[in-house]
Amino acid sequence: MGLSYQENYQVPFYESDINHNMKLPQLLSLVLQVSGKQSLSLGMSDDYIYQTYNLVWIITEYAIEIERLPKYTENIVIETVPTAYNKLFCYRDFNVYGESGDKIMTIHSTFVLMDYDSRKVHPVIDEIVDVYDVEKIKKIDRGPRYESLEIPEETTYHVRFFDLDLNGHVNNSKYLEWMYDVLDVAFLEEHIPHCINLKYVKEVHYGHDIKSRVETDGLITKHEIVTQGVVHAQARIEWKEK
Amino acid sequence: MGLSYQENYQVPFYESDINHNMKLPQLLSLVLQVSGKQSLSLGMSDDYIYQTYNLVWIITEYAIEIERLPKYTENIVIETVPTAYNKLFCYRDFNVYGESGDKIMTIHSTFVLMDYDSRKVHPVIDEIVDVYDVEKIKKIDRGPRYESLEIPEETTYHVRFFDLDLNGHVNNSKYLEWMYDVLDVAFLEEHIPHCINLKYVKEVHYGHDIKSRVETDGLITKHEIVTQGVVHAQARIEWKEK
Repeated sequence: MGLSYQENYQVPFYESDINHNMKLPQLLSLVLQVSGKQSLSLGMSDDYIYQTYNLVWIITEYAIEIERLPKYTENIVIETVPTAYNKLFCYRDFNVYGESGDKIMTIHSTFVLMDYDSRKVHPVIDEIVDVYDVEKIKKIDRGPRYESLEIPEETTYHVRFFDLDLNGHVNNSKYLEWMYDVLDVAFLEEHIPHCINLKYVKEVHYGHDIKSRVETDGLITKHEIVTQGVVHAQARIEWKEK
Repeated sequence: MGLSYQENYQVPFYESDINHNMKLPQLLSLVLQVSGKQSLSLGMSDDYIYQTYNLVWIITEYAIEIERLPKYTENIVIETVPTAYNKLFCYRDFNVYGESGDKIMTIHSTFVLMDYDSRKVHPVIDEIVDVYDVEKIKKIDRGPRYESLEIPEETTYHVRFFDLDLNGHVNNSKYLEWMYDVLDVAFLEEHIPHCINLKYVKEVHYGHDIKSRVETDGLITKHEIVTQGVVHAQARIEWKEK
């Protein structure tokens, strides 16, 4: 484990869903902001590594365990801690604590450094990660295997202007919006995710429509985000009654 | 003018657009949150008036003047002040100040109280607005007239699950997303709104596709959000080079 960092947050109205829970895509954006602030506090801001190395952090994979989601107006604590890194990957956990201090979510995440121009993954630079005081390991955490969907239902989505972040790419959190949106609203009113595995394979650019594919097996849904036959993201979600 | 209230805010990555400006729909959500916090601080929270009177605040109209938009990472101040009310309408301004203290935006807004069950406008209750120490007036500010669009271009949008707020209605800020999105991205890369008039006519519910209609006349765009031939919102936006 490396240095930890935490911030408080109160869930606003406009980030709350019909179940009065915090919208999960918003939460993923928020925790990313918290890790960015840790980097800034350690003198290794996103701006600095972009200016110095032409590199940007991107997320390649999440494994999310959800006891419950933060509630509307709840005061939560988001704690982040880098757990290890190897030649290519940096692993970081986010722990979300509810108002009464109980841990309600764990978000395991995998980051890589990407060259901003070539959009290719760059090996981890020790000088960048030294500030987090985190252990270098040999082992590579491969994550789960995602099987291709066989006979999915699919829905087409237009990439909206405000889906883009300041790099002109579709914000990571949008993929999860598309995955949720193909599910029945009656189902989403009665269930929350219990466990999510989500892998980003390829960036989505503006001007493309995407297809959100889903296969349902009881309380498990399997997802793909696809443009022109190419898979951009895959996920497996286990749901539970809320 | 009634009692004013202000909060500080730093613009996060995930609320920034490709021009490194704060996404305007996000800003509209945020300022609404700030007025909600003023109400809470005065003992007249949204929860309280819902529990006591079965009423909720809704916005019917905005007139927005933009010198410039808040920038990514900028520390801004949002000030809100109720300006007057009459039998049906409550008027409130939001002033946004940039990091150097200059006023960069003014958002004039019109609120009404709506019965939560009947979805009908309820006359203003003096006990609710007394806490803001604001002047009662006779005059009704009618706002600009919005002409019907004659030969608009139109694009269909699906109402997404996460477009809904905790009341199950499409969040106000989404309308502006649909209005922006029909414009050419090359135009949006070069221009920002200078002046926006936006009127909410009718709520949009889940399960309906909406059409975002636009007519362009030089640097003026006129907008309608329509479902099944019924107008739900209208806007007129004057743009300027950024």
